[in-house]
Amino acid sequence: MSTPFPPARTAPGVALLPPPGGQLGTVSIGDVTLENGVVLPDVHLAVQRWGVLSPTLDNVVLVEHALTGDSHVIGDADSAPGWWEGMVGPGAPIDTDEWCVIATNVLGGCKGSTGPSTLAPDGKPWGSRFPELTIRDQVNAEAQLLSLIGIDRLGAVVGGSMGGMRVLEWIVSQPERVAAALVLAVGARATADQIGTQTTQMAIIKADPDWQGGDYHGTGRVPMTGMGLARRIAHLTYRTEGELEHRFANSAQGAEDPWQGGRYAVQSYLEHQADKLCQRFDPATYVLLSEAMNRHDVGRGRGGVAAALASTSVPVVVGGVDSDRLYPLHTQAELADGLPGCAGLEIVHSRDGHDGFLTEAAAVAKLLTETMRLARENR
Amino acid sequence: MSTPFPPARTAPGVALLPPPGGQLGTVSIGDVTLENGVVLPDVHLAVQRWGVLSPTLDNVVLVEHALTGDSHVIGDADSAPGWWEGMVGPGAPIDTDEWCVIATNVLGGCKGSTGPSTLAPDGKPWGSRFPELTIRDQVNAEAQLLSLIGIDRLGAVVGGSMGGMRVLEWIVSQPERVAAALVLAVGARATADQIGTQTTQMAIIKADPDWQGGDYHGTGRVPMTGMGLARRIAHLTYRTEGELEHRFANSAQGAEDPWQGGRYAVQSYLEHQADKLCQRFDPATYVLLSEAMNRHDVGRGRGGVAAALASTSVPVVVGGVDSDRLYPLHTQAELADGLPGCAGLEIVHSRDGHDGFLTEAAAVAKLLTETMRLARENR
Repeated sequence: MSTPFPPARTAPGVALLPPPGGQLGTVSIGDVTLENGVVLPDVHLAVQRWGVLSPTLDNVVLVEHALTGDSHVIGDADSAPGWWEGMVGPGAPIDTDEWCVIATNVLGGCKGSTGPSTLAPDGKPWGSRFPELTIRDQVNAEAQLLSLIGIDRLGAVVGGSMGGMRVLEWIVSQPERVAAALVLAVGARATADQIGTQTTQMAIIKADPDWQGGDYHGTGRVPMTGMGLARRIAHLTYRTEGELEHRFANSAQGAEDPWQGGRYAVQSYLEHQADKLCQRFDPATYVLLSEAMNRHDVGRGRGGVAAALASTSVPVVVGGVDSDRLYPLHTQAELADGLPGCAGLEIVHSRDGHDGFLTEAAAVAKLLTETMRLARENR
Repeated sequence: MSTPFPPARTAPGVALLPPPGGQLGTVSIGDVTLENGVVLPDVHLAVQRWGVLSPTLDNVVLVEHALTGDSHVIGDADSAPGWWEGMVGPGAPIDTDEWCVIATNVLGGCKGSTGPSTLAPDGKPWGSRFPELTIRDQVNAEAQLLSLIGIDRLGAVVGGSMGGMRVLEWIVSQPERVAAALVLAVGARATADQIGTQTTQMAIIKADPDWQGGDYHGTGRVPMTGMGLARRIAHLTYRTEGELEHRFANSAQGAEDPWQGGRYAVQSYLEHQADKLCQRFDPATYVLLSEAMNRHDVGRGRGGVAAALASTSVPVVVGGVDSDRLYPLHTQAELADGLPGCAGLEIVHSRDGHDGFLTEAAAVAKLLTETMRLARENR
C-alpha cells in the first residue's frame, strides 16, 4: 500500500462544516455583539453546504435567503425542494463542481439558528426577551461563522429580497472579503410603503390573543391566525394585480358559493399560502425579521445611501423585476447607479412581481451565471 | 294684495326631502326586496339635499359616496367638511343654482341608513342577522326612494370607487332614468386583487375577539382593533409607493425612536388614519360593504361585462387616476371602451393613487363640469 498524499492544509474550522451533500448542520459561533450593544450569548447558526471546499478555501459562495426562506436552497432525493431549485448543483449556474455553496439560516431565524423560538441559556424560550436585530447583525454573525471556519474571502454572495439586504451589507461593510455579488429585488433601504405594510403585519400578529406578549412558546397557543392574516397581506404585495386577475378574476373557489358563505378563488389561494407558512414558520420570528427589514438602511451611519454605495467597488450584478410592486424597479436602479462595481441594472421581465426573483428561473440563472463569471475574474 | 301664482304642481313625495341647505334627513322607503330574494323590512335612507327642485323635478343630481363616505358631500358653516368639498354649491361644478343635489347614505351603511348597526323591527340591533347586500340592492333602494319622491329621471348620477359602482349599475339597470353620468376610479367588476385585499381585511376584523360573530352592538365591546388594522392595509392600497416615500421615507415619527419601541412616521400616519375611521365607522358595516364590493360585477346575469356595458347609451364620463394601484387605469379603460355613451377615457394625473378621485379637486371638477354639460344636453 502506498502512503496517501497528505490532505490539503485546511483550517481546523473546516471540520465545523456539514458534509457537502446539503445535510443540515449547526455551528456554534459563540457570543455575537449586536449593533445596539447587546451581547447575544452562545449563538448557533444552521448551515447547509453543497460542493467541496478548495484547498485554499477560496471557492465559497454564500447564498442568502429571504424572509421566510432558510438554508435549504435546493433539495435532493431525500429532502423537500428548496427555495432556489436549479440554481445550485453540478452544472447549475452556481456550479458545485467548481464552487462550494454555503447557506445559513439567518440569525434570529426559526430553522435551526438562534432566534425567538429557541432556548435561551436559562433553558426557557427566548420569546419576547430576544433582542431586536438588524440586517447588519445578521451579516456580522455570518462573517463570524466564516472566520471560524477559516474562510477569509467569499467568491460570491448572492440573494434576493431580505437576502439581497444582507448581500448589500456584505459588500459595503466588508468589501475586501467579497469577490463578486448578486443583489436581487431589493433597495438600499426600507421604503415607506414597505414599512407601512410590515408594521401593519406585525401589529396584526401582535393583535392575536395567542401572541401573549411574544411569550407564547411552550404555552400550546401560537398566534397562527395573526401570522396567517399577515401572510395573506404580504403575499398580495409579492404578486401583481395582473397575474392574480389572470389566474383568479372574481371566480368562486371550486364548487363553493361566496353568496352562501363560500370563498372566492383568490381568497382560497391566499388562505392556502397562509396555511403553508403557518405549518413551517414561527410568528415571533416573522415579527423580528420584519422589524429588521424596517431598519434596513445601507446608508445608516455611513453618510447616507449614496456615500455607502460609492464606498464599495465589489463587482456586483443588480437585478430587479419589472412588475415588482413591493420593491419597485427604481429602488434597484438606485443601487445600479450608485454601486461603482455595477455595469448596469438587469431587468427581469415577469408578471409575477416581487416573487419573480424566485419564479423566473431562466432569468435568475442568467444573472447568477454572470455573477459567477465576475467571481472567477476577481477571485 | 294680488293673488300669488299657484305653486308648481309637485309630487306629494317632495315633502319627504330634507330642506335644500344640506341638513340631514331620513326617509322611510318601506320594504326592499334584495337580489337574493330576502325582503328587508322598513328600510330608511339618510338623505341630504342641496339646491331647489325644479317644478318638473328634472334637475336632480344623485351623488354616490364611496366605502366609508356618506351623504355629507359638502359642509357648511354649521357642519364638518364633506368628502367632496367644492364640487357642489352655487357656482361649483355641480351648480346648485341650476341643479338639486341629492345624496343618500348607502343601504347597509352606518350614517343614518338601515344597516347592521341599526335596530331591526324587533328592537334589537341587526348585527349578524343583517342580510348580505349587493351594489344592485343599494341602487334599487335609491331608485325606490326617488320614485317615492316623484323623481322619474336623474339629470346625472356621479361617484367614484364604491360610488362609481352604483353609478355603473344605475346606467346599466335603469338607463332611461339617467341623463348623464360620471364613473370615477372603478371597474366593471371586482378584480382578484381587490377581492384578495378585501376578503383579508374582512377576516382581520372577524378575527378580533370583540367581533363576537358580528353581534357586538350593544355589548360595549367593538372590534375596533380589527377594523383599524384593516383600514391600515386598505389605506396603503388607496395611496402610492411614491407619495408615501416622498412624505415619510423611513423616518421616525417626531421624537419617537423605532429602535426603542417608537414608531416610524408612516406607521403613525396609518395608525392615525385607522383611529379616524374608528371614531366614525361601524366594523360590521365595513365588512358588509366590502363583501358588496367583492360581488360587484356589472355583467352578472347580463351576458357578461361587455354585453352589459354595450346595453346602455347613457352619455357618460369615465375617469381614472393614472397612479391608482387598487383600481388600475386599465379597468377604467375597459369601461370607456365598452360604454357606447363614453367619448374616451379621462385620465387624472396624480401621485395620490386611488385617493386621487378625492384629492385632485381641479381635475375632478373638470370631469364634473363635462358631465353636467352632457346632462344639460340630454335633460
